[in-house]
Amino acid sequence: MTVKKILLYLLCLSLVGANAQQNDSLIIRSLYTEVLTNGKCYQTLDYLSNKIGGRLSGSPQAQKAVEYMERVMKENRFDTVWLQEVMVPHWVRGEKEQGAIVTKDRIRVPICALGNSVATPDNGIEAQVIEVKSLEEVAQLGKEKISGKIVFFNRPMNPVHIHTGAAYGGAVDQRTRGASVAAKYGAVGVVVRSMTLALDDQPHTGAMNYNDSFPKIPACAISTKGAEELSKLLRLIMAGSIKFYFKQHCKMLADEKSYNVIGEIKGSEKPEEIIVVGGHLDAWDNGDGAHDDGAGCVQSVEALRLIKQLGLKPKRTIRCVLFMNEENGLKGGLKYAEEALLKKEKHLAAIESDAGGFTPRGFNCNAVGDTMKRFQSWLPLLKPYGIDKITWPGGGADIGPLAKQGVVTIGFMPDSQRYFDYHHTAIDTFDKINKRELELGAASMASLIWLISQYGL
Amino acid sequence: MTVKKILLYLLCLSLVGANAQQNDSLIIRSLYTEVLTNGKCYQTLDYLSNKIGGRLSGSPQAQKAVEYMERVMKENRFDTVWLQEVMVPHWVRGEKEQGAIVTKDRIRVPICALGNSVATPDNGIEAQVIEVKSLEEVAQLGKEKISGKIVFFNRPMNPVHIHTGAAYGGAVDQRTRGASVAAKYGAVGVVVRSMTLALDDQPHTGAMNYNDSFPKIPACAISTKGAEELSKLLRLIMAGSIKFYFKQHCKMLADEKSYNVIGEIKGSEKPEEIIVVGGHLDAWDNGDGAHDDGAGCVQSVEALRLIKQLGLKPKRTIRCVLFMNEENGLKGGLKYAEEALLKKEKHLAAIESDAGGFTPRGFNCNAVGDTMKRFQSWLPLLKPYGIDKITWPGGGADIGPLAKQGVVTIGFMPDSQRYFDYHHTAIDTFDKINKRELELGAASMASLIWLISQYGL
Repeated sequence: MTVKKILLYLLCLSLVGANAQQNDSLIIRSLYTEVLTNGKCYQTLDYLSNKIGGRLSGSPQAQKAVEYMERVMKENRFDTVWLQEVMVPHWVRGEKEQGAIVTKDRIRVPICALGNSVATPDNGIEAQVIEVKSLEEVAQLGKEKISGKIVFFNRPMNPVHIHTGAAYGGAVDQRTRGASVAAKYGAVGVVVRSMTLALDDQPHTGAMNYNDSFPKIPACAISTKGAEELSKLLRLIMAGSIKFYFKQHCKMLADEKSYNVIGEIKGSEKPEEIIVVGGHLDAWDNGDGAHDDGAGCVQSVEALRLIKQLGLKPKRTIRCVLFMNEENGLKGGLKYAEEALLKKEKHLAAIESDAGGFTPRGFNCNAVGDTMKRFQSWLPLLKPYGIDKITWPGGGADIGPLAKQGVVTIGFMPDSQRYFDYHHTAIDTFDKINKRELELGAASMASLIWLISQYGL
Repeated sequence: MTVKKILLYLLCLSLVGANAQQNDSLIIRSLYTEVLTNGKCYQTLDYLSNKIGGRLSGSPQAQKAVEYMERVMKENRFDTVWLQEVMVPHWVRGEKEQGAIVTKDRIRVPICALGNSVATPDNGIEAQVIEVKSLEEVAQLGKEKISGKIVFFNRPMNPVHIHTGAAYGGAVDQRTRGASVAAKYGAVGVVVRSMTLALDDQPHTGAMNYNDSFPKIPACAISTKGAEELSKLLRLIMAGSIKFYFKQHCKMLADEKSYNVIGEIKGSEKPEEIIVVGGHLDAWDNGDGAHDDGAGCVQSVEALRLIKQLGLKPKRTIRCVLFMNEENGLKGGLKYAEEALLKKEKHLAAIESDAGGFTPRGFNCNAVGDTMKRFQSWLPLLKPYGIDKITWPGGGADIGPLAKQGVVTIGFMPDSQRYFDYHHTAIDTFDKINKRELELGAASMASLIWLISQYGL
């Protein structure tokens, strides 16, 4: 080739590149325009939240949610829609919990059972209470100080983190592991400060796990205002004279049959290469699970609908997976990955939306090297929509088992400030959803899926 | 100099630069930590919203707000605190407005008077109604079609804009200028679709202006649901048989004496160079003005408090200005700029927060060339806080008169999605404020002010 020819060739290449970017830019703009003028996800979430409500694994509501979302996928004419059977734990809360600080008076405080916890005796449990700030502190105090008591875990989420997820991550071990650590040293129950940065009267439930080596003692969450009150009294009054009382009737029933709900649009050129987008369909029973994770479910369905509605033909297969049982078992995510391995399916990437339906800010991702560079090359296309942030690492709980198989996993990142105001509470309800924020999230996910489906990774 | 010496010199320079950046990085981190652990702006806004409430220019509440914010600045021990006198319009709403679509039945619809509008006659006004989508359409229809009628401006804000401010800008001429354009062709009143992307029952007030060449006819806003209802009926029923009725008792009283509230921290090296940060203290009377613009006021005060609290000594003077009368006259902003010119004060930059107390996303700015490059050089410092977006153009209403004098003006940009859900309505109330989002905004502003105060522009 002469120099002239080389230059001409390079020019053509760059024009092809420029045209492709321009074309992608137009497609992404169309995805946003469609969702903002004709979006369906808000009304789907309205139904899921207000007509079905809290839908913990194994509950009748979870089954209704499965049937409803399967219907929605079929109405949207995804190429294939199916249910993937999975056995899930079935924990029930029973009648409303009661909690009180017992001094000379009884001061009622808002509590709720932690998910998977055992019940207290029928009349509740009342014992001296000891405040700790960490699992390690329990071990340091040892049997002498802990035995026979209710352990009060009161390390707050650290407000200085800008992303609230980091604050959650730094405190949640008290909820997940506190009961067994305390039981090891003879505690009779635990009460855990709610996982939130807000100071209010909402107790936040959430999963806890027992270590089978130790007795299973009942565990509840207390609202942050309740925790402050209890802590203050423990400081002011001789600690030995303060008891804590709580009563809860929750129990774990036999496992139930349930389903992941799956729908896909077949790829036109490389149908065997699969891109998963999803959220989890189960939600705690105390609210209606609008943000956690109804939002992620309806956004995932909407992402596929938008692509279909615009008549776009993705080169690779796009699959929407609504996972069952993220909250208290992860059985759906495990099952999906297990079957993918058995069937030798080729998963290119998996995107999860499980951080609420708030205004979109970007993505996190476990990709490195050239794959991360490819993501970064797309940032100019995402910039007009305020989602040009890709951080490392990333992923999500349900797609974690896929990550272990080497799949690139991506977490959709909405703004995090309000999430833990509602997370796992009675106020995680549909009225906390802003229609446009929800829709922008759906288009953000659709845009990234579209790029991956066209260019691979 | 030898090459070796030059290299050594360059190395030293770059190390100084690196150290400065590292130091700034630590200072910015401290500003965020202080506000997130010990912030005062949320409680100040609580008082301003819940104890004082809506505070339209000239009202007793506006006077209370002046006194309260002056006290807060003094309690925060700003170096100097003073009031700048300014005459402001004094418009009052009077008793609650009524609106109805008149067919065979009377269908009540939520309306409110537009700010600065005249009243209807005591018994209200009832006339045939004609729907238009633009000011131009009124002119096209002309006297024959418009005369004697109530003109219904019903062009919605365009939902496809990602930043809702652009949608507002594209529709608000109906509110500000619709009455006089309609009056020119003989209309007897106007009803304007509320400026919001939400579909609900909230009428949104906001300023309108009369052109003195035409009769002053009464103007009201109708909720978006009301507008949809009216439009539907006009399509379904023979338009001529539908009338609109509204009654409002608002009026413009004589101008009142009021104040801009000003406090500053004197610069340690170049005190004559001033950086303004502010919001507007007046707020519409129907809500409590928490987002518009109580948030901007308390964030501006907090920005100075944070810098003072950390014992930082800004090289240039930092001045907090709470402007009076942004909503229906801009007299405070005009007065401030006028006095600045008279006193030959050297204003380096002015930052305004008047887009709500939502999660911070960045800044807009009217700077160009090297000044813009300097801003951009600071983006890495702002990135950890999610505010590394500086767009052009930018500024704010109150600091617009300073911009005309050549001052660099900057608008603080929180996320825009929820703003017009509340803007100028009865639901712009304190419970819509998220404490952390408000605080992050204050630290964002403090960080930028700090950088300008140290390095100039």
